[in-house]
Amino acid sequence: MKRIRDYGIQIGTLEIGPKNLITDVQGVTVGHVTLNQGDMKTGVTAIIPHQGNLFKEKVMAASYVINGFGKSIGTVQIDEMGTIETPIILTNTLSVGVCSHALIQYMLNQNEEIGRTTGTINPVVCECNDMLLNDIRAGYVKEDHVFQAIQRSKVSFEEGAVGAGTGMVCFGLKGGIGSSSRIVETSYGKYTIGVLVLSNFGQMEHFRLNGIPVGQKLCKIVQSPIRNEEDKGSIIIVVATDLPLTERQLKRIIKRTSVGLARTGSYFGNESGDIVIGFSTANKISHYPTSELRYVTSIHEAEINQAFIAVADATEEAILNSLITSETTIGRNGHTAYSLKEYIEHLTNI
Amino acid sequence: MKRIRDYGIQIGTLEIGPKNLITDVQGVTVGHVTLNQGDMKTGVTAIIPHQGNLFKEKVMAASYVINGFGKSIGTVQIDEMGTIETPIILTNTLSVGVCSHALIQYMLNQNEEIGRTTGTINPVVCECNDMLLNDIRAGYVKEDHVFQAIQRSKVSFEEGAVGAGTGMVCFGLKGGIGSSSRIVETSYGKYTIGVLVLSNFGQMEHFRLNGIPVGQKLCKIVQSPIRNEEDKGSIIIVVATDLPLTERQLKRIIKRTSVGLARTGSYFGNESGDIVIGFSTANKISHYPTSELRYVTSIHEAEINQAFIAVADATEEAILNSLITSETTIGRNGHTAYSLKEYIEHLTNI
Amino acid sequence: MKRIRDYGIQIGTLEIGPKNLITDVQGVTVGHVTLNQGDMKTGVTAIIPHQGNLFKEKVMAASYVINGFGKSIGTVQIDEMGTIETPIILTNTLSVGVCSHALIQYMLNQNEEIGRTTGTINPVVCECNDMLLNDIRAGYVKEDHVFQAIQRSKVSFEEGAVGAGTGMVCFGLKGGIGSSSRIVETSYGKYTIGVLVLSNFGQMEHFRLNGIPVGQKLCKIVQSPIRNEEDKGSIIIVVATDLPLTERQLKRIIKRTSVGLARTGSYFGNESGDIVIGFSTANKISHYPTSELRYVTSIHEAEINQAFIAVADATEEAILNSLITSETTIGRNGHTAYSLKEYIEHLTNI
Amino acid sequence: MKRIRDYGIQIGTLEIGPKNLITDVQGVTVGHVTLNQGDMKTGVTAIIPHQGNLFKEKVMAASYVINGFGKSIGTVQIDEMGTIETPIILTNTLSVGVCSHALIQYMLNQNEEIGRTTGTINPVVCECNDMLLNDIRAGYVKEDHVFQAIQRSKVSFEEGAVGAGTGMVCFGLKGGIGSSSRIVETSYGKYTIGVLVLSNFGQMEHFRLNGIPVGQKLCKIVQSPIRNEEDKGSIIIVVATDLPLTERQLKRIIKRTSVGLARTGSYFGNESGDIVIGFSTANKISHYPTSELRYVTSIHEAEINQAFIAVADATEEAILNSLITSETTIGRNGHTAYSLKEYIEHLTNI
Repeated sequence: MKRIRDYGIQIGTLEIGPKNLITDVQGVTVGHVTLNQGDMKTGVTAIIPHQGNLFKEKVMAASYVINGFGKSIGTVQIDEMGTIETPIILTNTLSVGVCSHALIQYMLNQNEEIGRTTGTINPVVCECNDMLLNDIRAGYVKEDHVFQAIQRSKVSFEEGAVGAGTGMVCFGLKGGIGSSSRIVETSYGKYTIGVLVLSNFGQMEHFRLNGIPVGQKLCKIVQSPIRNEEDKGSIIIVVATDLPLTERQLKRIIKRTSVGLARTGSYFGNESGDIVIGFSTANKISHYPTSELRYVTSIHEAEINQAFIAVADATEEAILNSLITSETTIGRNGHTAYSLKEYIEHLTNI
Repeated sequence: MKRIRDYGIQIGTLEIGPKNLITDVQGVTVGHVTLNQGDMKTGVTAIIPHQGNLFKEKVMAASYVINGFGKSIGTVQIDEMGTIETPIILTNTLSVGVCSHALIQYMLNQNEEIGRTTGTINPVVCECNDMLLNDIRAGYVKEDHVFQAIQRSKVSFEEGAVGAGTGMVCFGLKGGIGSSSRIVETSYGKYTIGVLVLSNFGQMEHFRLNGIPVGQKLCKIVQSPIRNEEDKGSIIIVVATDLPLTERQLKRIIKRTSVGLARTGSYFGNESGDIVIGFSTANKISHYPTSELRYVTSIHEAEINQAFIAVADATEEAILNSLITSETTIGRNGHTAYSLKEYIEHLTNI
Repeated sequence: MKRIRDYGIQIGTLEIGPKNLITDVQGVTVGHVTLNQGDMKTGVTAIIPHQGNLFKEKVMAASYVINGFGKSIGTVQIDEMGTIETPIILTNTLSVGVCSHALIQYMLNQNEEIGRTTGTINPVVCECNDMLLNDIRAGYVKEDHVFQAIQRSKVSFEEGAVGAGTGMVCFGLKGGIGSSSRIVETSYGKYTIGVLVLSNFGQMEHFRLNGIPVGQKLCKIVQSPIRNEEDKGSIIIVVATDLPLTERQLKRIIKRTSVGLARTGSYFGNESGDIVIGFSTANKISHYPTSELRYVTSIHEAEINQAFIAVADATEEAILNSLITSETTIGRNGHTAYSLKEYIEHLTNI
Repeated sequence: MKRIRDYGIQIGTLEIGPKNLITDVQGVTVGHVTLNQGDMKTGVTAIIPHQGNLFKEKVMAASYVINGFGKSIGTVQIDEMGTIETPIILTNTLSVGVCSHALIQYMLNQNEEIGRTTGTINPVVCECNDMLLNDIRAGYVKEDHVFQAIQRSKVSFEEGAVGAGTGMVCFGLKGGIGSSSRIVETSYGKYTIGVLVLSNFGQMEHFRLNGIPVGQKLCKIVQSPIRNEEDKGSIIIVVATDLPLTERQLKRIIKRTSVGLARTGSYFGNESGDIVIGFSTANKISHYPTSELRYVTSIHEAEINQAFIAVADATEEAILNSLITSETTIGRNGHTAYSLKEYIEHLTNI
């Protein structure tokens, strides 16, 4: 499947990771369950921060709300404790409850002590609203889909109209899952930052390709009535890295996803739930107390600019990848979201 | 049932509302489903902000995180949009997913246009961990319980070991649902502030009765091994008012719940999810745009101190009411949480 | 003086105000004191929110920190109380204390009751670091300059290397003061949003002109060694509007300045103090209590997207105006910051 | 001078440090300049976080706003960068500008590279409003006083109506400077938490002595008309510790000062600027980049509750110490603030 770089569009100048995916960060895997039939255009995507026991070895984490018209679950505790202790589940807005319940069950199955000798679990579930293409009231997502998405997770994964991205619409085109990564060079060695987005935001007339405002031109050539929609919807942005950081530094870094998002033409629309979840696989946190002080390794702040640039660029590219890899999709009531593939050549010949 | 005032304990000097309950705020109702049998010690409590269509006529709202070790759902959008558009559901930690899903279904049933011609819904579900008395892994709470709790909601409601409070433990004693209210006198007339708590926090040795540190004495006379537990658990505090306010003012007011909480002996323990949800029934917000500018009535800031005092006092009294009205409860593994009733006379004779 | 539109560059599609300045918002005025001689390259800029007594008739206000490596004064109280009660002063980083003291004196002179029968005053002073061109250690800014800047304030004002902008550097070029405005059409009538920036941020290689990444080309043709500087410095963004809003809505709107900032090539650099101060002249707040409830008029949230777009576009254009109107400046140690004017034709002929 | 413990009042059960002062934290010193003559009732207090070069070896820091009606300077950058790089200066509200300017000068004198080869400086200056006793409009505090307060700083220091506390009023009694400390026992060894307050808040009728509401009784026996004042004023709380923490943990700890504050009878009044500044002397941060990753040592979160209790208790005791050590003071217009000493015996014989 051709990605945005295959069309000669390169975001920024930093080196990309081997697969140019969030899974370039060692230990991260991604799995999808795609529900695509008739007016069923939805699904589940699972991001696994590492392959060990996530409850017992938590990852350092942070969240950031770009615009809070969203129903994501789990951010309150992420902010307080600076950790994630479950897979991260993406789905549609009305399936957050189902997926949250399934994720709790999954964690209970993995950890017999939860609710017995130790406390409970903080499920992390994020969402976008796919009602344009999907019959969201039908409740197609079931608990089993969460289990399956987790089980199917692997280093290589598909982008586009798959998993939670099956029914998403972005800039009036078909959106969905996209990913990208960057290598960050510091005095202390090379590290990786990976981004995965679930894109479902934006107004066509504001779309920008590598910064160039091509939206109005696009409006003229796309026939779908969706092109006139206002910016509602949402974007979920998941940032993974192996950079050694404190929680404060991690939060600063993931905030720069908003730079990449803005450069694609978003103005963080009123009804858009633009939520960022970030984690670092360095400095894992054990659930149970340890007999010695923790040593949190972290970069000097003077090295952080490279990470800022990396996360902004990877976010922009992940969004473009979500658009270019998504197939044209006809959903509920015949609503059609076209693929950027159909128009990309017109736009790059400006 | 005797409440804390019936023992001669009076918090502050402000006038209380007619019932001294959150439902003294016109339009607010509360309903419980109590699941109390063997090691099933849990339930659901629903707070209904007003009796019309909540989705179409939202209430102005704010949330405040005292300590974020909690899994409450819905706060991101409350903070961004300043509204609540559903009943507020309280339950146990691992039932948040189930209740969230049920609440979504309830709202879909009430509003055919959701997910069709208008957007989605932001369910508000809050929780405490009742694993000490309840077999929380068993998943006793079902979707129907949410429907029932909403349907049963009324102006008069029980406090104590009922609804979501059935299995809660507070200061090593039996906690649960408690409520209180205050009348706020302003230049513009009288208004009401009501508080409802789900109490499940605190370490016995820190317990304070009307400020007086009686915890250590209590530790000597209570036999339950729970008395030595560290402060984990949580408290959910729901604040209702008919005061005309802007969202900023409402947020300032609900933050003062932490004053009442601190005065009972909480230090906002590490593993305590201390979450506040507040709403004003003045200045309702219509879902659909209106042809004229909104007029938000609001008090001058110089009048706000009375509301600060009222909410602090009502929170303290609601917590004490949750303790004094809860019956001694024997739960999972024979764990026993005693009622404050058993000891109150010893403590007031200091 | 030619502005960016005079070079055929148009940001977005919304209508601009009559002067395309922040002073298109009725009542707002701006004044400068420029200190430009030898290695003295600094100054003061004052923004007056309205022409009455600001202490007695405060404006509704909000602040937003894009990146907090900055020394701005007054944001704590703006956030808590939702008001501004003084002129807004811009200056260099090390002159914040002097300007703050002068602003306090100014307010004491205007209001005899401050510190006697009523409380104190919250001065708002923002800053960027002009040490590259200015001998910032010399302390050239004196208290009188603040008085003069306020006295000189008027509806028509200069942009570029003037006032607080005298010594600023932006994207390795000469930065400084820039402004722009937009007309927002709502169901309730037309309103104005105006933006003024003090630009002192950015790395030349990341510079974007109307979104197009021209920075690397620019690096090849500009001779100044400043072009290789990392992104430190800062930007202060002041947003004025006559839109009727609550404080929550105002805060949402000013947050979208970050969209315009990102589109110029900023990634919110580590050492950049990127601070936004916003106010609405609608719904003024009287210092002394009133006998009747306040009526805060506000738009329905469904109308807010136009304001989001307006503030993003006006911010981007204000930054470009700050660059294009600034004259090439030779400062401390012969450091030279060239004007964008010198290169603009090379960049638009891409 | 007798402190609150000397009257048999003991807050909590944790061990106190050797001096029961903030300076029990190794390296911390405190200095005062007291301006006390006629209607000049004001001053400056300096807290030095460590005795090395603060700019080159910064301390990890956090700030927390309990109520933001205040004019403190420096919190924006503390929150973003997690550091303090100057002494912390306390003074009266209208002297913040003067003290900020003096502190900048002090830092420039100490560090020739500031503004030349490296960036600028973030001065931290906090304030309360002493206008009741002091002629605050007169501007008695001069730049030299800041230099003197820093120079006089030492491990042993006075409490009460000294330094910035000279003219402060707390609960209608004479407030000012107070301090206390606690020893925190962890699995990793013993650490110290010290608190210093500048107390200027509270309404007499709400005053609580070790939690016991004695305010109304006090109102009956105190003759000063100040007893009827509403809660305005402010409190500044400075927390020092040698606990190894991340910035997130430090912020959690300093937030618990609000527990101690609430227990003395504050409800975080509308016009009270209740600001907390905290720092840890563990894990210092070098200004210049280092060739190796930083190792931030930190406790496991399961150990943090002791620190929460310690900071709450030390804050409460520091406030009581500020009251009991302050001498009765007659200030501007003959306003008289009586010392708690005069009444303490009446209150403890309840």
